[in-house]
Amino acid sequence: MPADTAATVVLVSGGMDSVVALHHAAATGTVLAGVSFDYGSKHNHREIPFAKAHCADLGLRHETVSLGFMDQLFTSDLLKSGGEIPDGHYEELSMKQTVVPFRNGIMLAIAAGFAESAGATSLTIAAHSGDHAIYPDCREPFMAAMASAITEGTYEKIALLRPFIDQRKEDIAARGAELGIDFSKTYSCYKGGELHCGTCGTCTERKEAFSLARLVDPTTYAC
Amino acid sequence: MPADTAATVVLVSGGMDSVVALHHAAATGTVLAGVSFDYGSKHNHREIPFAKAHCADLGLRHETVSLGFMDQLFTSDLLKSGGEIPDGHYEELSMKQTVVPFRNGIMLAIAAGFAESAGATSLTIAAHSGDHAIYPDCREPFMAAMASAITEGTYEKIALLRPFIDQRKEDIAARGAELGIDFSKTYSCYKGGELHCGTCGTCTERKEAFSLARLVDPTTYAC
Repeated sequence: MPADTAATVVLVSGGMDSVVALHHAAATGTVLAGVSFDYGSKHNHREIPFAKAHCADLGLRHETVSLGFMDQLFTSDLLKSGGEIPDGHYEELSMKQTVVPFRNGIMLAIAAGFAESAGATSLTIAAHSGDHAIYPDCREPFMAAMASAITEGTYEKIALLRPFIDQRKEDIAARGAELGIDFSKTYSCYKGGELHCGTCGTCTERKEAFSLARLVDPTTYAC
Repeated sequence: MPADTAATVVLVSGGMDSVVALHHAAATGTVLAGVSFDYGSKHNHREIPFAKAHCADLGLRHETVSLGFMDQLFTSDLLKSGGEIPDGHYEELSMKQTVVPFRNGIMLAIAAGFAESAGATSLTIAAHSGDHAIYPDCREPFMAAMASAITEGTYEKIALLRPFIDQRKEDIAARGAELGIDFSKTYSCYKGGELHCGTCGTCTERKEAFSLARLVDPTTYAC
């Protein structure tokens, strides 16, 4: 089954971190495919076309996995079935209502099965050191346990690569600039509007990352 | 969010082991719901109605999660898109073609997110000591790592319960008989016919379990 003995499948949402992870993986190794998940969030329809476009630019296979059940069975304000997205920084307790329970666990598990089916030997995820304390399935103790579960649970002992795990979001932005990525072709806002709102937790972090990396922010914010 | 501080969500396919796990969990604690997965296998349409019926008999909520992407993106003879199901015992190498990559990882991850959304504190799976060496995501090293990933990745530190992990399939059958379960209302055959084929790996194990437990096998086999 293995098509390439050292190929990776990249989880790419279309946000800035995962788009950098995709280009970084393509620049430093072999990418078998990029995979996006439509889990019924308010912003999936804005970000996934960018994920697809970056894969196309790199000549890579792209798959979108539709997880319609999440919007029906799960409770979160991030989902179309949920309430309004709060404004303010991620650290604030109000952002807890945007947690989609075990979202990264679900996406990684499906990507692991797809990777094994497609003949890849690893997954790549853009987890980083600044990933949010309010999201338990973004933290390294989760990632390390999930990596072990994926290795144990697959024939090819699929590895979970986290190239940015020791970096901050601004470091990833800098790496993206180095790779020549056009960040206007990425989307972050949890509200899912045509323009980034500029005030929700993820817009706040996006602005900060460009600023701390001393990069021009190409994003047009509503405010 | 928590509806019951010690409630479990049971993964129930409609096969004999998981139906016993459902009744066992209901007899020894509080079950919040049973959850089944339609992942596009040849036999899902035969087994899931039994899962639903057992939940209804116990007055429990039942959810079926539809995973249509697996039949499209994954390679396995267990799936409708795959080749023919081989005959013979599980141990035989030919059964490897029925592996659905990381299937248990995917089902457990989704069930974990659902459990956290619904306010449960644990998941219950009918993994047992005889689970197949050919399926890496049935073995205890996988289950232990996945349990850790689920605990680390959820707010409520959801536990993964494996009440039958030290038991054999015939012990589970005996426990089911003790609980008064009508095993004619369970389905195992990987071929998905109206009658159990009686010759595939899972039919072979089903027959053996009843025989070893000295129980009358109520199943009508094609041969």
